[in-house]
Amino acid sequence: MGEQLYSEPMGALLLTLDATFFALSDPKRRDVLERLGRGPATLSQLAGPSGLTLNGIKKHVGILELAGLVETEKVGRARECRLGPAMTLGEAGEWIEAHRHAWEGRLDRFEHFVEGAG
Amino acid sequence: MGEQLYSEPMGALLLTLDATFFALSDPKRRDVLERLGRGPATLSQLAGPSGLTLNGIKKHVGILELAGLVETEKVGRARECRLGPAMTLGEAGEWIEAHRHAWEGRLDRFEHFVEGAG
Repeated sequence: MGEQLYSEPMGALLLTLDATFFALSDPKRRDVLERLGRGPATLSQLAGPSGLTLNGIKKHVGILELAGLVETEKVGRARECRLGPAMTLGEAGEWIEAHRHAWEGRLDRFEHFVEGAG
Repeated sequence: MGEQLYSEPMGALLLTLDATFFALSDPKRRDVLERLGRGPATLSQLAGPSGLTLNGIKKHVGILELAGLVETEKVGRARECRLGPAMTLGEAGEWIEAHRHAWEGRLDRFEHFVEGAG
């Protein structure tokens, strides 16, 4: 999944990484993703346990939808939400993994320095 | 690193995950982290290649500092920046990994359904 996206224009990729990380930066939105991980739900079903109004939850679902993390469909009078294609979730995870190595390398160098000095 | 953080009060953990994901949601801030992955730099050294003013870069570095991704220190008349403790970067990576399984499970179930129908 990651490799496929790396071949996209840099602008588009950065924009989508931005949208993905931003979508994940709110606990209510992470709650929505956890709930949809157990199966689809309507906006009203999401609003209930969230303590948010229908409009509040709509706004959060819209941000998740922009990032491709959620997709929604009108079913009768309700709007059903489910996990979306999430094309950049793998990308976001890989970004973090790649950079954790930089942090760990930094700590390793520090430990090495401390050991060398001891 | 992850387990240690899970034992913290839920509020603090969520706030830090929020700050981490938010800090990562801007390409200029990710550029700063990539640069600091190669070694410390002053604010002016970061501002140069970023195309941002000193004040612009200060704002981004402040957001990275809040999330613990960067730490800064006054050295003479300059402010030196380096990678910070990043206590929640592992946490953020684990959140994504855990939830990728939900997405993959969803795709597996779909493929299984398609295969069953074929």
